[in-house]
Amino acid sequence: MTTVDNGVNVQALLDAREALRSAPEAAQFTWRASAKWQNGVHSTATVEKFFGLGQEQTHKSESVFSADHPEVFAAADQGITPIEYLLVGLASCLTAGVASVAQNRGIQLRSVESTVEGAHDIRGILGVDSDVRNGYNDIKVTFNIDADASKEEIEALVAQSQKRSAVYDALTNPTNITVEVA
Amino acid sequence: MTTVDNGVNVQALLDAREALRSAPEAAQFTWRASAKWQNGVHSTATVEKFFGLGQEQTHKSESVFSADHPEVFAAADQGITPIEYLLVGLASCLTAGVASVAQNRGIQLRSVESTVEGAHDIRGILGVDSDVRNGYNDIKVTFNIDADASKEEIEALVAQSQKRSAVYDALTNPTNITVEVA
Repeated sequence: MTTVDNGVNVQALLDAREALRSAPEAAQFTWRASAKWQNGVHSTATVEKFFGLGQEQTHKSESVFSADHPEVFAAADQGITPIEYLLVGLASCLTAGVASVAQNRGIQLRSVESTVEGAHDIRGILGVDSDVRNGYNDIKVTFNIDADASKEEIEALVAQSQKRSAVYDALTNPTNITVEVA
Repeated sequence: MTTVDNGVNVQALLDAREALRSAPEAAQFTWRASAKWQNGVHSTATVEKFFGLGQEQTHKSESVFSADHPEVFAAADQGITPIEYLLVGLASCLTAGVASVAQNRGIQLRSVESTVEGAHDIRGILGVDSDVRNGYNDIKVTFNIDADASKEEIEALVAQSQKRSAVYDALTNPTNITVEVA
Protein backbone atom coordinates (compact mmCIF):
# COMPACT_ATOMS: atom_id res chain seq x y z
CA MET A 1 0.00 0.00 0.00
CA THR A 2 1.30 3.39 -1.03
CA THR A 3 1.04 6.10 1.58
CA VAL A 4 -0.23 9.35 0.22
CA ASP A 5 1.07 12.36 2.11
CA ASN A 6 0.07 15.86 1.13
CA GLY A 7 0.74 17.12 4.64
CA VAL A 8 -2.94 17.46 5.51
CA ASN A 9 -4.19 15.87 8.73
CA VAL A 10 -7.48 14.70 7.28
CA GLN A 11 -8.28 12.50 10.26
CA ALA A 12 -8.25 15.54 12.55
CA LEU A 13 -10.67 17.31 10.22
CA LEU A 14 -12.98 14.28 10.09
CA ASP A 15 -12.83 14.08 13.90
CA ALA A 16 -13.64 17.80 14.15
CA ARG A 17 -16.61 17.31 11.85
CA GLU A 18 -17.96 14.62 14.18
CA ALA A 19 -17.25 16.62 17.34
CA LEU A 20 -18.92 19.77 16.01
CA ARG A 21 -22.02 17.86 14.92
CA SER A 22 -23.12 17.78 18.57
CA ALA A 23 -21.46 21.08 19.60
CA PRO A 24 -22.53 23.72 17.05
CA GLU A 25 -21.61 26.57 19.44
CA ALA A 26 -17.93 25.53 19.26
CA ALA A 27 -18.09 25.95 15.47
CA GLN A 28 -18.84 29.68 15.74
CA PHE A 29 -15.62 31.48 14.79
CA THR A 30 -14.91 35.21 14.63
CA TRP A 31 -11.97 36.22 12.46
CA ARG A 32 -10.54 39.71 12.94
CA ALA A 33 -8.30 42.31 11.36
CA SER A 34 -7.50 45.78 12.59
CA ALA A 35 -6.37 48.50 10.25
CA LYS A 36 -4.50 51.74 10.78
CA TRP A 37 -4.34 54.59 8.29
CA GLN A 38 -0.75 55.61 7.49
CA ASN A 39 -0.94 58.40 4.88
CA GLY A 40 -2.78 58.94 1.63
CA VAL A 41 -4.46 55.66 0.71
CA HIS A 42 -1.72 53.66 2.45
CA SER A 43 -2.82 51.62 5.47
CA THR A 44 -1.58 48.64 7.43
CA ALA A 45 -3.75 45.79 8.67
CA THR A 46 -2.84 43.48 11.51
CA VAL A 47 -4.15 39.96 12.05
CA GLU A 48 -3.35 38.00 15.17
CA LYS A 49 -6.30 36.93 17.33
CA PHE A 50 -9.53 35.16 16.57
CA PHE A 51 -12.30 33.44 18.49
CA GLY A 52 -13.25 29.81 18.02
CA LEU A 53 -13.91 26.50 19.80
CA GLY A 54 -15.51 28.58 22.55
CA GLN A 55 -12.48 30.68 23.41
CA GLU A 56 -9.99 33.33 22.30
CA GLN A 57 -7.25 31.97 20.05
CA THR A 58 -3.99 33.47 18.79
CA HIS A 59 -2.06 32.83 15.61
CA LYS A 60 1.54 31.68 16.17
CA SER A 61 2.64 35.13 15.09
CA GLU A 62 1.14 38.50 14.27
CA SER A 63 0.90 39.30 10.54
CA VAL A 64 0.97 42.85 9.18
CA PHE A 65 -0.14 43.74 5.65
CA SER A 66 0.34 46.96 3.70
CA ALA A 67 -2.24 48.20 1.25
CA ASP A 68 -1.93 51.17 -1.07
CA HIS A 69 -2.75 52.22 -4.59
CA PRO A 70 -0.28 51.93 -7.49
CA GLU A 71 1.58 54.85 -9.02
CA VAL A 72 -0.85 54.97 -11.98
CA PHE A 73 -3.44 56.08 -9.40
CA ALA A 74 -1.08 58.86 -8.24
CA ALA A 75 -0.26 56.93 -5.03
CA ALA A 76 2.96 55.59 -3.55
CA ASP A 77 2.42 51.83 -4.18
CA GLN A 78 3.63 50.83 -0.74
CA GLY A 79 1.57 47.64 -0.90
CA ILE A 80 -0.91 45.83 -3.11
CA THR A 81 -4.37 47.32 -3.60
CA PRO A 82 -7.18 46.28 -1.23
CA ILE A 83 -9.06 44.46 -3.99
CA GLU A 84 -6.00 42.34 -4.82
CA TYR A 85 -6.19 40.89 -1.28
CA LEU A 86 -9.43 39.20 -2.35
CA LEU A 87 -7.51 37.31 -5.07
CA VAL A 88 -4.86 36.24 -2.54
CA GLY A 89 -7.63 34.85 -0.32
CA LEU A 90 -9.40 33.10 -3.19
CA ALA A 91 -6.26 31.47 -4.59
CA SER A 92 -5.08 30.23 -1.20
CA CYS A 93 -8.50 28.94 -0.17
CA LEU A 94 -8.98 26.88 -3.33
CA THR A 95 -5.39 25.59 -3.08
CA ALA A 96 -5.90 24.46 0.54
CA GLY A 97 -9.10 22.75 -0.55
CA VAL A 98 -7.37 20.88 -3.36
CA ALA A 99 -4.73 19.60 -0.92
CA SER A 100 -7.34 18.51 1.65
CA VAL A 101 -9.61 16.78 -0.83
CA ALA A 102 -6.64 15.06 -2.51
CA GLN A 103 -5.49 13.74 0.86
CA ASN A 104 -8.99 12.49 1.65
CA ARG A 105 -9.19 10.73 -1.74
CA GLY A 106 -5.73 9.19 -1.55
CA ILE A 107 -4.28 11.27 -4.39
CA GLN A 108 -0.63 12.30 -4.11
CA LEU A 109 -0.04 15.86 -5.24
CA ARG A 110 3.28 16.93 -6.70
CA SER A 111 2.55 20.55 -7.52
CA VAL A 112 -0.44 22.86 -7.48
CA GLU A 113 -0.20 26.29 -9.07
CA SER A 114 -2.92 28.71 -9.96
CA THR A 115 -3.45 32.11 -11.50
CA VAL A 116 -6.35 34.28 -10.49
CA GLU A 117 -7.48 37.22 -12.61
CA GLY A 118 -10.11 39.73 -11.60
CA ALA A 119 -11.64 42.02 -14.24
CA HIS A 120 -12.33 45.45 -12.78
CA ASP A 121 -13.83 48.46 -14.51
CA ILE A 122 -12.48 51.32 -12.41
CA ARG A 123 -15.13 53.74 -13.73
CA GLY A 124 -17.27 52.44 -10.86
CA ILE A 125 -15.03 53.51 -7.96
CA LEU A 126 -14.15 56.76 -9.73
CA GLY A 127 -17.84 57.63 -10.07
CA VAL A 128 -17.69 57.98 -13.86
CA ASP A 129 -20.76 55.82 -14.50
CA SER A 130 -23.23 54.72 -11.83
CA ASP A 131 -24.16 51.65 -13.92
CA VAL A 132 -20.62 50.26 -13.46
CA ARG A 133 -20.19 48.30 -10.24
CA ASN A 134 -17.37 49.10 -7.81
CA GLY A 135 -16.15 45.52 -7.43
CA TYR A 136 -14.97 42.88 -9.89
CA ASN A 137 -17.02 42.17 -13.00
CA ASP A 138 -15.83 38.57 -12.90
CA ILE A 139 -12.94 36.46 -11.66
CA LYS A 140 -11.16 33.63 -13.47
CA VAL A 141 -9.05 30.98 -11.76
CA THR A 142 -6.78 28.63 -13.73
CA PHE A 143 -5.15 25.66 -12.00
CA ASN A 144 -2.07 23.74 -13.10
CA ILE A 145 -1.90 20.54 -11.08
CA ASP A 146 0.63 17.74 -11.25
CA ALA A 147 -0.66 14.72 -9.33
CA ASP A 148 -0.90 10.97 -9.36
CA ALA A 149 -4.34 11.09 -10.91
CA SER A 150 -6.24 11.33 -14.19
CA LYS A 151 -7.38 14.64 -15.67
CA GLU A 152 -10.94 13.75 -14.59
CA GLU A 153 -9.87 13.04 -11.00
CA ILE A 154 -7.97 16.33 -10.91
CA GLU A 155 -11.00 18.22 -12.22
CA ALA A 156 -13.14 16.54 -9.57
CA LEU A 157 -10.65 17.63 -6.86
CA VAL A 158 -10.94 21.23 -7.98
CA ALA A 159 -14.73 21.05 -8.20
CA GLN A 160 -14.98 19.68 -4.65
CA SER A 161 -12.57 22.34 -3.38
CA GLN A 162 -14.84 25.03 -4.88
CA LYS A 163 -17.88 23.45 -3.27
CA ARG A 164 -16.36 23.70 0.21
CA SER A 165 -14.40 26.92 -0.15
CA ALA A 166 -15.12 29.68 2.35
CA VAL A 167 -13.69 32.41 0.12
CA TYR A 168 -15.34 31.15 -3.08
CA ASP A 169 -18.67 31.33 -1.26
CA ALA A 170 -17.90 34.75 0.23
CA LEU A 171 -17.20 36.19 -3.24
CA THR A 172 -19.93 34.46 -5.25
CA ASN A 173 -22.69 35.11 -2.70
CA PRO A 174 -23.65 38.28 -0.83
CA THR A 175 -22.70 38.88 2.80
CA ASN A 176 -24.20 41.53 5.05
CA ILE A 177 -21.64 44.09 6.24
CA THR A 178 -22.37 46.61 8.98
CA VAL A 179 -20.12 49.68 9.23
CA GLU A 180 -20.17 51.81 12.38
CA VAL A 181 -18.30 54.81 13.73
CA ALA A 182 -17.42 54.35 17.41
CA MET B 1 -6.85 79.44 4.41
CA THR B 2 -5.85 76.18 6.06
CA THR B 3 -4.36 73.59 3.77
CA VAL B 4 -5.73 70.13 4.38
CA ASP B 5 -3.22 67.39 3.55
CA ASN B 6 -4.14 63.74 4.01
CA GLY B 7 -1.57 62.70 1.42
CA VAL B 8 -4.16 61.91 -1.24
CA ASN B 9 -3.75 63.46 -4.70
CA VAL B 10 -7.44 64.12 -5.22
CA GLN B 11 -6.85 66.32 -8.27
CA ALA B 12 -5.22 63.41 -10.10
CA LEU B 13 -8.25 61.24 -9.30
CA LEU B 14 -10.68 63.91 -10.50
CA ASP B 15 -8.58 64.29 -13.68
CA ALA B 16 -8.63 60.51 -14.18
CA ARG B 17 -12.42 60.53 -13.81
CA GLU B 18 -12.69 63.09 -16.60
CA ALA B 19 -10.17 61.34 -18.83
CA LEU B 20 -11.86 57.93 -18.47
CA ARG B 21 -15.29 59.36 -19.23
CA SER B 22 -14.32 59.43 -22.90
CA ALA B 23 -11.95 56.43 -22.78
CA PRO B 24 -13.84 53.56 -21.09
CA GLU B 25 -11.41 50.95 -22.52
CA ALA B 26 -8.55 52.46 -20.49
CA ALA B 27 -10.62 51.88 -17.32
CA GLN B 28 -10.61 48.10 -17.81
CA PHE B 29 -8.17 46.70 -15.25
CA THR B 30 -7.16 43.10 -14.60
CA TRP B 31 -5.69 42.39 -11.18
CA ARG B 32 -3.78 39.15 -10.72
CA ALA B 33 -2.39 36.82 -8.09
CA SER B 34 -0.61 33.52 -8.59
CA ALA B 35 -0.53 30.88 -5.91
CA LYS B 36 1.74 27.95 -5.26
CA TRP B 37 0.95 25.05 -2.97
CA GLN B 38 3.68 24.47 -0.36
CA ASN B 39 2.54 21.60 1.86
CA GLY B 40 -0.65 20.69 3.68
CA VAL B 41 -2.98 23.70 3.47
CA HIS B 42 -0.03 26.10 3.35
CA SER B 43 0.37 28.08 0.14
CA THR B 44 2.04 31.28 -0.99
CA ALA B 45 0.50 33.85 -3.30
CA THR B 46 2.45 36.36 -5.33
CA VAL B 47 1.17 39.71 -6.60
CA GLU B 48 3.23 41.87 -8.92
CA LYS B 49 1.73 42.63 -12.34
CA PHE B 50 -1.62 43.92 -13.45
CA PHE B 51 -3.19 45.34 -16.59
CA GLY B 52 -4.71 48.79 -16.82
CA LEU B 53 -4.78 52.04 -18.81
CA GLY B 54 -4.40 49.90 -21.90
CA GLN B 55 -1.12 48.23 -20.98
CA GLU B 56 0.74 45.90 -18.63
CA GLN B 57 1.68 47.51 -15.32
CA THR B 58 3.96 46.40 -12.50
CA HIS B 59 3.86 47.17 -8.80
CA LYS B 60 7.03 48.81 -7.46
CA SER B 61 7.84 45.49 -5.82
CA GLU B 62 6.58 41.93 -5.79
CA SER B 63 4.54 40.97 -2.70
CA VAL B 64 4.35 37.41 -1.37
CA PHE B 65 1.67 36.26 1.08
CA SER B 66 1.49 33.05 3.12
CA ALA B 67 -1.81 31.40 3.90
CA ASP B 68 -2.35 28.41 6.15
CA HIS B 69 -4.77 27.12 8.76
CA PRO B 70 -4.24 27.63 12.50
CA GLU B 71 -3.09 24.92 14.89
CA VAL B 72 -6.66 24.36 16.13
CA PHE B 73 -7.35 23.02 12.62
CA ALA B 74 -4.38 20.64 12.97
CA ALA B 75 -2.27 22.75 10.62
CA ALA B 76 1.05 24.57 10.98
CA ASP B 77 -0.24 28.19 11.09
CA GLN B 78 2.45 29.50 8.74
CA GLY B 79 0.20 32.36 7.69
CA ILE B 80 -3.27 33.75 8.21
CA THR B 81 -6.25 31.81 6.88
CA PRO B 82 -7.51 32.55 3.36
CA ILE B 83 -10.78 34.00 4.66
CA GLU B 84 -8.91 36.48 6.88
CA TYR B 85 -7.40 38.02 3.72
CA LEU B 86 -10.90 39.24 2.87
CA LEU B 87 -10.97 41.25 6.10
CA VAL B 88 -7.56 42.77 5.32
CA GLY B 89 -8.90 43.85 1.92
CA LEU B 90 -12.12 45.25 3.37
CA ALA B 91 -10.44 47.23 6.15
CA SER B 92 -7.82 48.73 3.85
CA CYS B 93 -10.33 49.59 1.11
CA LEU B 94 -12.66 51.46 3.47
CA THR B 95 -9.68 53.22 5.09
CA ALA B 96 -8.35 54.40 1.71
CA GLY B 97 -11.83 55.64 0.90
CA VAL B 98 -12.10 57.61 4.14
CA ALA B 99 -8.77 59.33 3.38
CA SER B 100 -9.75 60.15 -0.21
CA VAL B 101 -13.21 61.48 0.66
CA ALA B 102 -11.80 63.51 3.57
CA GLN B 103 -9.24 65.10 1.25
CA ASN B 104 -11.94 65.91 -1.29
CA ARG B 105 -14.12 67.49 1.42
CA GLY B 106 -11.29 69.47 3.01
CA ILE B 107 -11.29 67.51 6.27
CA GLN B 108 -7.92 66.97 7.97
CA LEU B 109 -7.56 63.47 9.39
CA ARG B 110 -5.37 62.82 12.41
CA SER B 111 -5.95 59.08 12.85
CA VAL B 112 -8.15 56.40 11.34
CA GLU B 113 -8.33 52.99 12.95
CA SER B 114 -10.77 50.19 12.37
CA THR B 115 -11.59 46.71 13.53
CA VAL B 116 -13.22 44.20 11.23
CA GLU B 117 -14.89 41.07 12.55
CA GLY B 118 -16.24 38.25 10.41
CA ALA B 119 -18.62 35.71 11.94
CA HIS B 120 -18.00 32.28 10.48
CA ASP B 121 -19.78 29.03 11.27
CA ILE B 122 -17.17 26.45 10.29
CA ARG B 123 -19.77 23.66 10.11
CA GLY B 124 -20.22 24.78 6.50
CA ILE B 125 -16.70 24.13 5.25
CA LEU B 126 -16.45 20.94 7.33
CA GLY B 127 -19.62 19.59 5.73
CA VAL B 128 -21.44 19.11 9.05
CA ASP B 129 -24.63 20.82 7.91
CA SER B 130 -25.46 21.70 4.30
CA ASP B 131 -27.74 24.52 5.49
CA VAL B 132 -24.72 26.38 6.88
CA ARG B 133 -22.92 28.50 4.30
CA ASN B 134 -19.17 28.18 3.75
CA GLY B 135 -18.40 31.90 3.94
CA TYR B 136 -19.04 34.57 6.53
CA ASN B 137 -22.49 34.91 8.08
CA ASP B 138 -21.89 38.61 8.49
CA ILE B 139 -19.09 41.14 8.87
CA LYS B 140 -18.92 44.11 11.22
CA VAL B 141 -16.57 47.07 10.77
CA THR B 142 -16.01 49.63 13.54
CA PHE B 143 -14.12 52.86 12.81
CA ASN B 144 -12.37 55.13 15.29
CA ILE B 145 -11.56 58.39 13.56
CA ASP B 146 -9.88 61.49 14.92
CA ALA B 147 -10.37 64.39 12.50
CA ASP B 148 -11.07 68.08 12.27
CA ALA B 149 -14.78 67.43 11.78
CA SER B 150 -18.05 66.81 13.59
CA LYS B 151 -19.37 63.35 14.39
CA GLU B 152 -21.91 63.81 11.57
CA GLU B 153 -19.23 64.79 9.04
CA ILE B 154 -17.15 61.76 10.07
CA GLU B 155 -20.14 59.44 9.69
CA ALA B 156 -20.76 60.93 6.25
CA LEU B 157 -17.12 60.27 5.28
CA VAL B 158 -17.47 56.62 6.22
CA ALA B 159 -20.80 56.32 4.41
CA GLN B 160 -19.33 57.77 1.21
CA SER B 161 -16.29 55.48 1.49
CA GLN B 162 -18.65 52.47 1.68
CA LYS B 163 -20.57 53.70 -1.35
CA ARG B 164 -17.41 53.78 -3.50
CA SER B 165 -15.56 50.82 -2.04
CA ALA B 166 -14.49 48.09 -4.45
CA VAL B 167 -14.09 45.49 -1.70
CA TYR B 168 -17.31 46.40 0.11
CA ASP B 169 -19.16 45.85 -3.17
CA ALA B 170 -17.27 42.62 -3.91
CA LEU B 171 -18.31 41.16 -0.54
CA THR B 172 -21.89 42.43 -0.32
CA ASN B 173 -22.80 41.55 -3.91
CA PRO B 174 -22.22 38.34 -5.88
CA THR B 175 -19.44 38.00 -8.47
CA ASN B 176 -19.19 35.27 -11.07
CA ILE B 177 -16.07 33.10 -10.65
CA THR B 178 -14.92 30.61 -13.28
CA VAL B 179 -12.49 27.88 -12.20
CA GLU B 180 -10.60 25.88 -14.83
CA VAL B 181 -7.94 23.21 -14.89
CA ALA B 182 -5.31 23.90 -17.58
